Amino acid sequence: MSGAGAAGAVVRVIGLDPGLRHTGWGVIEAAGNRLRHLGDGVVSTDDRLPLAERLMQLHRGLTALLEEWRPDEAAVEETYVNRNPGSALKLGQARGVVMLAPALVGIPVREYGAMLVKQSVVGTGAATKEQVQMMVRRLLPNARLSRADAADALAVSICHAHHRATRLAWAKGLVRA
Amino acid sequence: MSGAGAAGAVVRVIGLDPGLRHTGWGVIEAAGNRLRHLGDGVVSTDDRLPLAERLMQLHRGLTALLEEWRPDEAAVEETYVNRNPGSALKLGQARGVVMLAPALVGIPVREYGAMLVKQSVVGTGAATKEQVQMMVRRLLPNARLSRADAADALAVSICHAHHRATRLAWAKGLVRA
Repeated sequence: MSGAGAAGAVVRVIGLDPGLRHTGWGVIEAAGNRLRHLGDGVVSTDDRLPLAERLMQLHRGLTALLEEWRPDEAAVEETYVNRNPGSALKLGQARGVVMLAPALVGIPVREYGAMLVKQSVVGTGAATKEQVQMMVRRLLPNARLSRADAADALAVSICHAHHRATRLAWAKGLVRA
Repeated sequence: MSGAGAAGAVVRVIGLDPGLRHTGWGVIEAAGNRLRHLGDGVVSTDDRLPLAERLMQLHRGLTALLEEWRPDEAAVEETYVNRNPGSALKLGQARGVVMLAPALVGIPVREYGAMLVKQSVVGTGAATKEQVQMMVRRLLPNARLSRADAADALAVSICHAHHRATRLAWAKGLVRA
């Protein structure tokens, strides 16, 4: 990507797409508008185990990733809630654990709505999953994207990097004004 | 309570009623059918803070309680899901964090449906909140019950103690048969 703004400091971002069975993750480095892919994958839990143990698997998997990649900031997708209350509760349980892990090690966590993620990555909030994946591949040619959850996680990390750069540019503008 | 079964070993149970704003907790000791109240209260979070920080407040509050009371087992109420998906997701986020805390320190966590809790405490799954509170006060005369959430947490700990005693009695019967 061509950097319109100043390169600035490099920030390492982990994007997370929560799910009880599979939580997607993706780590990128952003320097202004420049992005670099570092890693992606999923943390999976064993659905034969009781819920508390699955949540613990998820927590441990995330904690190990944060230890390994040491991101500066975390971005989590705000999940669709246009489903039945039972699935929303289940998803929420995973999402709570996903948001907790970075917070516990002092990493700031931001949330981005699914529409905003699509808007940032593809240019339209109405983009399909396939369009998001295609753009993630284009922006981050080294991404593995073993699973769709990992692509969604990278998409939210890209969204965060863009908004972060915009926020910084704004802040500078306001200081100068 | 009069103990119909053998007194058996004393087990310390923490009951938890999850909520993002207020999570009720109650600690009892059970020896067979005998119950003793040890403590109850709520862990509250500051609703002006971002979600990740509220989840961290909840996690830290629970971890401190587990450290202070050192329960052997935990029981969590399975929450109603007959509400809108948005509230179910929100509640789920708190519930995931609540179930994680005891699991992380090696305490087994069981879940009990709201109907079963009422059935165990009042004798009917159709009991009102007031009936549950009245029976909790009767079974545990020393309970503070500063908030309704604490009463619900004690109710789920009582439910767990009863089911635990029944499971043990069954197991003994099966071994003898």
